[in-house]
Amino acid sequence: MRLVLSEKDLSFTAVVEKPWDRRTEFLALSPGGEVPVLVEEDGFAIPDANAILEYIEETRPNPPLLSTGPTARAKVRALAGFFDRVFFRDVVETLVVEKALKRLQGSGEPDGFAIRRGYQALEEHLKYINYLAEQHKGLASDALTLADLTAAAHLSVVDYLGDIAWDKHPEARAWYSRMKSRPSFRPLLADHIPGLPPPVHYANLDF
Amino acid sequence: MRLVLSEKDLSFTAVVEKPWDRRTEFLALSPGGEVPVLVEEDGFAIPDANAILEYIEETRPNPPLLSTGPTARAKVRALAGFFDRVFFRDVVETLVVEKALKRLQGSGEPDGFAIRRGYQALEEHLKYINYLAEQHKGLASDALTLADLTAAAHLSVVDYLGDIAWDKHPEARAWYSRMKSRPSFRPLLADHIPGLPPPVHYANLDF
Repeated sequence: MRLVLSEKDLSFTAVVEKPWDRRTEFLALSPGGEVPVLVEEDGFAIPDANAILEYIEETRPNPPLLSTGPTARAKVRALAGFFDRVFFRDVVETLVVEKALKRLQGSGEPDGFAIRRGYQALEEHLKYINYLAEQHKGLASDALTLADLTAAAHLSVVDYLGDIAWDKHPEARAWYSRMKSRPSFRPLLADHIPGLPPPVHYANLDF
Repeated sequence: MRLVLSEKDLSFTAVVEKPWDRRTEFLALSPGGEVPVLVEEDGFAIPDANAILEYIEETRPNPPLLSTGPTARAKVRALAGFFDRVFFRDVVETLVVEKALKRLQGSGEPDGFAIRRGYQALEEHLKYINYLAEQHKGLASDALTLADLTAAAHLSVVDYLGDIAWDKHPEARAWYSRMKSRPSFRPLLADHIPGLPPPVHYANLDF
């Protein structure tokens, strides 16, 4: 979300909300108690990440991040959804639980089998990203789209947790290198999880 | 999805796909192996329920099911997302597992505590639906929107699994009665789960 706001050159203030506190004022903005919520200067509030993204695209159309024309837009939305659900479930969630959460929470030993499964899935996904990046500069088209931002954001989490084997996927590597060097990614690359430092290559644009 | 297609008076052929078969031809249409997938007559295929809905709205705008104008559309998308995630998780999923799946699969006794929790959540959600239906004819506006279709589709599952205590929620009841009497709901109300007949009131429009 902050990548989208940044790519559209929109200024915003990020406010931390702990949904589990279920504050009454927050539930008035988000009846399901879900984050994120976008609050406009006039007080208009929208919960639901998808509703927020579509609203930003409708009210601040430049640069377009969903591409132009119904079929191109359908491809971008489907691809962004793929990374948000399938890549997240197969790769990010598994590796975050095994390599970070268990260590931070002291909730047991990492499951080596699960970690291997996560990296095997990552390998399949890198093949797919490499294939897409062979067709055009971005994953969905030559222009930057929400699909690039979504995929790169999820990949940056995996990258934070350890080395990614880029050798077999040169086009994917070149694409991710371009994404990392975008100004919108700077704050994200500067993020650190307390108690879990990133590998040395993490913020390196020439990894 | 079929409600949206029906409300827009679009003809379609539903094809059953078992995603767990992971057919190569299907994975070519949906790289994540997810259903639903929309296939146009010219072969253009879109996976991802959200991408499909937005594509249908962009290419077949009448009647509009996302409302008109960015703020109204944001409300509709957020409300539809709320029912798809929060209502589904709190109510539908719990009751389907406890009241249907366990019986159909013979996988243990229903958990009375979970069922009570599901019905308590339903009660809260009915209050919210009643509140929304007091403001306008539909849940998001006076016109029918995706929010009405999404909410009514999920409610119809709960209704199938047993009685809903409508007494305290007259506006919600009137709204749901209007939804049930729409022609688009007829095929849905005629659906039966083998081995699990619906209660007698299920397809009754004057429940």
